[in-house]
Amino acid sequence: MSSVPQILSKTELPASEAKWVTLYKLKWSDAEGKERTWECAERKTRKSSGVDAVAILALIKSKTNAFPLSTVVIEQYRPPIDKYIIELPAGLVDEGETPEQAAIRELKEETGYEADSVIESTPLTVVDPGMTTANMKMIALSVSMEGELEKPEPHLEAGEFIVTRVVELAKLHEELQAYDKKGFVIDARLQHLASGLELARQLHTGSL
Amino acid sequence: MSSVPQILSKTELPASEAKWVTLYKLKWSDAEGKERTWECAERKTRKSSGVDAVAILALIKSKTNAFPLSTVVIEQYRPPIDKYIIELPAGLVDEGETPEQAAIRELKEETGYEADSVIESTPLTVVDPGMTTANMKMIALSVSMEGELEKPEPHLEAGEFIVTRVVELAKLHEELQAYDKKGFVIDARLQHLASGLELARQLHTGSL
Repeated sequence: MSSVPQILSKTELPASEAKWVTLYKLKWSDAEGKERTWECAERKTRKSSGVDAVAILALIKSKTNAFPLSTVVIEQYRPPIDKYIIELPAGLVDEGETPEQAAIRELKEETGYEADSVIESTPLTVVDPGMTTANMKMIALSVSMEGELEKPEPHLEAGEFIVTRVVELAKLHEELQAYDKKGFVIDARLQHLASGLELARQLHTGSL
Repeated sequence: MSSVPQILSKTELPASEAKWVTLYKLKWSDAEGKERTWECAERKTRKSSGVDAVAILALIKSKTNAFPLSTVVIEQYRPPIDKYIIELPAGLVDEGETPEQAAIRELKEETGYEADSVIESTPLTVVDPGMTTANMKMIALSVSMEGELEKPEPHLEAGEFIVTRVVELAKLHEELQAYDKKGFVIDARLQHLASGLELARQLHTGSL
C-alpha cells in the first residue's frame, strides 16, 4: 500500500536523548587569541575510517557507444526537508570499510549498478563547516555496459524507498532545473557538480 | 598580535540553551504509512527569504584578456572542523535581502570584488538533507577588470579573519588537491564544482 510521506510532529530534542545527531558548544581562541564560542551539530555514527559518508558519481558507459555517457541520480523523501530530494547515490561508511568500498556497496544497494573501477576519490571534504562537523568523500565509479543501457534492480533494505533515474551527463544541469520546476529539491553538492559541468560547456562554446 | 586558532573545550549543548543551531526529533509516516522517527539539526537564523545562505562563484574576467578567467576562494578557520577550510565566499542571507543581493554584499565584504551582474542563480538547494534543514543557493557573479587583475581590499568585520585567493578557473581542481596536501580541508560544494569542471575537461580531451 503506497501513501505520501509526511511529517506528523516536530519537537525540540534534548542533546542527551539524541541517538544520531548531537549539539556541541565549542570554546575556541581566534587569530587574535580572543576567546569565543561556536555551536555545531555532529553525527554520532562516525566509524574508525573518520569519514562520515560518501556520494557516488557513477559514470555509466557503453562499450559499443550505444548510449551517451550517463550517470544515476536518486529521488528520495528526506524528513528534515519534507520533500523529495534529488541526490547522488550516497551513504554512511560502515565500520571496517574504506570509503571506496562503501561507495561500491552503496551504488549496488541503491541502484543495482556494479562498478568496475574507481575513477576519482576526492580528498576528505566538509559538508557545512560553519554548522556541522559532517565530512564526506565524493567517489566517481566507472560502470561499463556491454551495449545498450541496462537498468538493474536495486537491493534496498526494508523501509528504504528510493527511485533511481539515469541521466545523460551532458543534460544533468537542465534535468536538475526540470526537477526543481516539478517541486523536487536538489542537493547542493549535486547542483555544484552540474554547475561545474555547465560552466565548462559554456566556456567551451564561448557563450560565457 | 597573531596566534593560531584552537579549540579550548567541547561540551554537549542542551537544545534549550542553543542560540544558533538546534536539534529536532521528527515523527513522520513513510511511503507505506508506517510511523518512524528522524533526528535533524536546524539553524535558528533563517530570515523571511526562506534561504539560509548563499555561496558565490565569482567569474573574474579581463576586458583585455590580460589574465585567464579566474575565481576567488577563501581560506578560513572553522571551529567545527578545527582546521582552515577552503570555500567559496559565502554568508547568511540578512532580513530584507534577496539571495542575489546577499551574494553581491558578501562578495564585496569578504573579497572586495564588486560584481557587475548575476550570471546564474541556482534553484534553492539543500546542504545535507539527511542531517539538517540547511538550504542555500549558489550564485555566479560576473566581475570585470579593465585590464590586469586587481586585488581589492576586503571589508571584514572585527573578528573576521579571511584570506582570499584568486585561482585560475581551469586550475581550480589541481589547486584544491594542492590545498589538501598542505593540510587545508576543502568544502564539499566547492570540490563538487571543481570535479564537474575537471570531468568536463577530461571528457573534452578524451582522457576519460
